[in-house]
Amino acid sequence: MNIVLLGSGNVATHLGKALKMAGCNIVGVWSRTFENALSLASLLQTRAIAQVSHADPSADVYIISVNDDAIQDVASAIPVKDKLVVHTSGSVDMDVLKDYSADFGVLYPLQTFSREKDVSFKDIPVILESSSERAGEMLKEIAFRLSSRVHDLSSEQRRILHVSAVFACNFTNHLYALADDLLQNHDLDFDLLRPLIRETSEKIQNHSPRNVQTGPAVRNDKKTMHAHLNALKNTPDLYKLYQLLSQSIVNLK
Amino acid sequence: MNIVLLGSGNVATHLGKALKMAGCNIVGVWSRTFENALSLASLLQTRAIAQVSHADPSADVYIISVNDDAIQDVASAIPVKDKLVVHTSGSVDMDVLKDYSADFGVLYPLQTFSREKDVSFKDIPVILESSSERAGEMLKEIAFRLSSRVHDLSSEQRRILHVSAVFACNFTNHLYALADDLLQNHDLDFDLLRPLIRETSEKIQNHSPRNVQTGPAVRNDKKTMHAHLNALKNTPDLYKLYQLLSQSIVNLK
Repeated sequence: MNIVLLGSGNVATHLGKALKMAGCNIVGVWSRTFENALSLASLLQTRAIAQVSHADPSADVYIISVNDDAIQDVASAIPVKDKLVVHTSGSVDMDVLKDYSADFGVLYPLQTFSREKDVSFKDIPVILESSSERAGEMLKEIAFRLSSRVHDLSSEQRRILHVSAVFACNFTNHLYALADDLLQNHDLDFDLLRPLIRETSEKIQNHSPRNVQTGPAVRNDKKTMHAHLNALKNTPDLYKLYQLLSQSIVNLK
Repeated sequence: MNIVLLGSGNVATHLGKALKMAGCNIVGVWSRTFENALSLASLLQTRAIAQVSHADPSADVYIISVNDDAIQDVASAIPVKDKLVVHTSGSVDMDVLKDYSADFGVLYPLQTFSREKDVSFKDIPVILESSSERAGEMLKEIAFRLSSRVHDLSSEQRRILHVSAVFACNFTNHLYALADDLLQNHDLDFDLLRPLIRETSEKIQNHSPRNVQTGPAVRNDKKTMHAHLNALKNTPDLYKLYQLLSQSIVNLK
């Protein structure tokens, strides 16, 4: 199966590397910035494409991995209309691709990708959606090469999954950043928290998070919460978040 | 060194097991509920104590690991005044112990302890504070048996560390629980998020969280944030948290 990869950001880069490692044949890489296309094409040992309309028309699959807002623009420039066209976004409806092929779909790898860190795809849930049986078969063939955890979800379910991932990943990382900031402001090292952070995420690998909630809010320990709020009185952002998240813990009990 | 353990909750249980494994001699366990004292004493192969005032007066150290509010009460009932008296709380000042011995202090293991899950102490930061050189020496001897990561902090620093741990651990786990709830309400399985959660916490083991922040807020991707808020309009708690945490990400940039 010959694949054209359209995009060169974090998702495109990690996905491209994983596809390559899984034995897929990547016949070209396009990026809005040609230098980035050259750089990723070199990494994937394939050729860079200067314009989407110049992409190899004989490829089987065109994977669009760009900013959500640009997906439709990129799809409209693909030079053929009878091939599988796929995007990789968690939050964009599959139907944005409907005018550009009869066979279209979504391949959304549910993971956080950073330039700085390699990621193994084998345990990553890969979420699929497809417009036709043919699209579904082709997507499954690609997805199962990447991971054993392949799921078919609707656009609406995928959007909910994406929102939940924002809570579990993006917001969580931000809480780490806020904790780091607070420690730095008191000459304390974030390294003190790293084992705790690891254990917190390991604990829910085999438990429901609600069943392992700890801390003053779930105990309704008002004295400690009051002392904590007092320590946060000079950082209004943290103060407000502390209140709201503590109340939310109480509400969920 | 002979130790009396006063308390039988999660911290007392995990600490007691770690002390036992580290070769410390636990000569008695007390708990407000005698059945719990019996149960922990049996686990630690020592004897249960029905009242604090009946604790072995010849012990070297009395470790108080009870709810913050009860620390002073328990300390006041210890039958001797010339031994090391220690509490294990993250947020209570050391000085609550000052009337009960000249040698007192704090041994605060910075980790989240749940009944359901064993924890290795060897990488856990153990935070110490002591009233005297003698207390400091004894505490260090105990702490270094448990972990290689031993730190002296003041009561105020310890309180800041504790608040930051609430953000990085308790609030983080609550975000997992909210994500779980959201998924369940749409017939989706929390298992989809587990690899993402693990990767998010692994990523910051070697990076600063601020440098690996991902998601729509840090990209200022208003369209996606709007779509997410739209998906949350029937869950006002989540809606408000989404807004506040996204704004906080923007503020920290």
